[in-house]
Amino acid sequence: MNNFVYRNPVEIVFGKGQIEKLGQLIPKDAKVLLTYGGGSIFTNGVYDQVKSALAAHQVTEFGGIEPNPQYSTLMKAVEIVRREGINFLLAVGGGSTLDGTKFISVAAPYEGADPWDIVEAGAKAEKAIPLGSVITLPATGSEMNNLAVISRKEQDKKLPFSHPDVFPKFSIIDPTVTFSLPQRQVANGIVDTFVHVMEQYMTRPFDAPLQDRQAEALILALVDEAPKVIAEPENYNVRANLFWMATWALNGWLNVGTLQCWATHMIGHELTAQTGTDHGRTLALVLPALWNHQRKEKGEKIVQFGKRVWGIPDGPTDKMIDDTIAATKRFFESVGIRASRAEYGVTEEVIQAVAKMIGSRQPLGDRANIGEKEVVEILHLCD
Amino acid sequence: MNNFVYRNPVEIVFGKGQIEKLGQLIPKDAKVLLTYGGGSIFTNGVYDQVKSALAAHQVTEFGGIEPNPQYSTLMKAVEIVRREGINFLLAVGGGSTLDGTKFISVAAPYEGADPWDIVEAGAKAEKAIPLGSVITLPATGSEMNNLAVISRKEQDKKLPFSHPDVFPKFSIIDPTVTFSLPQRQVANGIVDTFVHVMEQYMTRPFDAPLQDRQAEALILALVDEAPKVIAEPENYNVRANLFWMATWALNGWLNVGTLQCWATHMIGHELTAQTGTDHGRTLALVLPALWNHQRKEKGEKIVQFGKRVWGIPDGPTDKMIDDTIAATKRFFESVGIRASRAEYGVTEEVIQAVAKMIGSRQPLGDRANIGEKEVVEILHLCD
Repeated sequence: MNNFVYRNPVEIVFGKGQIEKLGQLIPKDAKVLLTYGGGSIFTNGVYDQVKSALAAHQVTEFGGIEPNPQYSTLMKAVEIVRREGINFLLAVGGGSTLDGTKFISVAAPYEGADPWDIVEAGAKAEKAIPLGSVITLPATGSEMNNLAVISRKEQDKKLPFSHPDVFPKFSIIDPTVTFSLPQRQVANGIVDTFVHVMEQYMTRPFDAPLQDRQAEALILALVDEAPKVIAEPENYNVRANLFWMATWALNGWLNVGTLQCWATHMIGHELTAQTGTDHGRTLALVLPALWNHQRKEKGEKIVQFGKRVWGIPDGPTDKMIDDTIAATKRFFESVGIRASRAEYGVTEEVIQAVAKMIGSRQPLGDRANIGEKEVVEILHLCD
Repeated sequence: MNNFVYRNPVEIVFGKGQIEKLGQLIPKDAKVLLTYGGGSIFTNGVYDQVKSALAAHQVTEFGGIEPNPQYSTLMKAVEIVRREGINFLLAVGGGSTLDGTKFISVAAPYEGADPWDIVEAGAKAEKAIPLGSVITLPATGSEMNNLAVISRKEQDKKLPFSHPDVFPKFSIIDPTVTFSLPQRQVANGIVDTFVHVMEQYMTRPFDAPLQDRQAEALILALVDEAPKVIAEPENYNVRANLFWMATWALNGWLNVGTLQCWATHMIGHELTAQTGTDHGRTLALVLPALWNHQRKEKGEKIVQFGKRVWGIPDGPTDKMIDDTIAATKRFFESVGIRASRAEYGVTEEVIQAVAKMIGSRQPLGDRANIGEKEVVEILHLCD
């Protein structure tokens, strides 16, 4: 195992009716900026619960943070924070709202010329405004980590950043708020959760058996629960289980001391930047092709996964790899995601643009062996 | 799933050579009390590493915290803390040293008449002195939780307590310091880890599939690793894996939102209080008998565990339960622990004393169905 430091101070407040605790979780004298997205919190009742819990607090609102939160939108919030002396951020919504709010947290106090440098140029953000969340979508895991992905469409960019001070102070997870989610979003979240686990697992043998078994455990549970998630949207336990899995998939536990390969996400991000395709759908498109392309490099772990999760019987290695990839695609299809290049507008032009963008940075993967040429090959292997 | 709040702010600093980071982890101006146990830290090199890392700090030492840390010993440290204005505690050693230090942390600032009330009478400790640890024994998981077990032999008592402010600020885990551990302690730690997981799992079906799968994952990994732990004491990866499993088994993740049954531990604690038998050995003695006794109440989970972990084939329920219990005993034996009543001096008199002590408190188990009578029956079922 590699040396590591693990710290995750997020307080998770989980369950029915927990939004009312907001009033105690945020300091009484805080000047709060409540951030949200496209307005679903007005129809699912979350906005009213939040406002009621914060009746005694001083709250300013900032809505309109879009899926794939945009730098230009977030900079408007940064202006408000600076102008009004906001000292607590409360993100209410899905992972995009929360990711965007993490950017606001470090961008507002940033003293350099352009906070985008924190995302793209590795500029050091010295300060962060404390933040909390009421998370409404089981998908990104942003509620229990210090990661965010920010987009800048003027430059066709979608990039991740992390910062030790953007862990939410707390995240409230009330599974009942997911009852009204569109199936499309729920399915995207299932795939996102699945792929988060795989990016921390599907590398090469590294003698970290607990981390391996934990990743497999999460997928085994997710696969058992997924059909119920789709069929019974108002089954509380099922939605609670799904949300906990999504949170768990990216809170840092699975990758301590071992390897990671975020190539599927990085290629997926560029596909979203180019075509606007939902994040979850780009992942479902890329992952099987990437495993197929990397069958030599990832073969041992693909076989282990196939055996332990899909119950693939022993046989010739290439057949076991093919069967594992096929079973994984069937799982994505079982939640309603039939990924195809044609449907998502992944033209030859898009493929070249994605490959060029990725080729301009460090090669991807735990072996740093996926660059421009390999991205073209992988995208050609997609259905 | 039940509603829950989860927070675990411990910073884990894991790996070879990490003890040298102590100097940065403890505030420069802290008045530190370094606590330790019977002196193994002088022979395994840990003391020298700690002193070297803290060369610039003001450090007082307090040694002699025994296995099953005693109230009377710890109160001597409390006196030192109060007299010298100590404001940081550093536990260096195994779980007993760390548990004892957690007690010192809340006992020293306690303003009531007797800090023992914090342990036995639920007295509220308003303040806690911050603490950190260099943990040297993979067993109790104390390095990443806010729990401690304290003994008071004058009263034949061994009792747990928890406090939100006794999470270590940091715990350093360097697996190399375990190379020199006696096999007996290593085996005890394996059993303790196994049983920690089981106390959070072996209840009744509760529709928490992720928590179930994570518990099974830990045991699957532990069972694979245990023979190597015994056979190859200086295999770094193996010891690293074992330590991470021990830490993980009791950091709170496994039981969020679901049921627990700590009956094996509570009976084991009383056996230790009565006979001085090692904690791990009392657990190996009690657990199979307790499952046998509770086969109706725990049957569904015992069968699930047997199938998923031991690969027990489908068959009549009672046979599957028997086979699961037998496989679990074989695992304990495989690490060298052959538990027997006779060997540990568990006489009829001891059984009655243990049962009476437990009977004087709330009934044990997730069904609160294990009292004096049941404890006698369980102990009679032990080998």
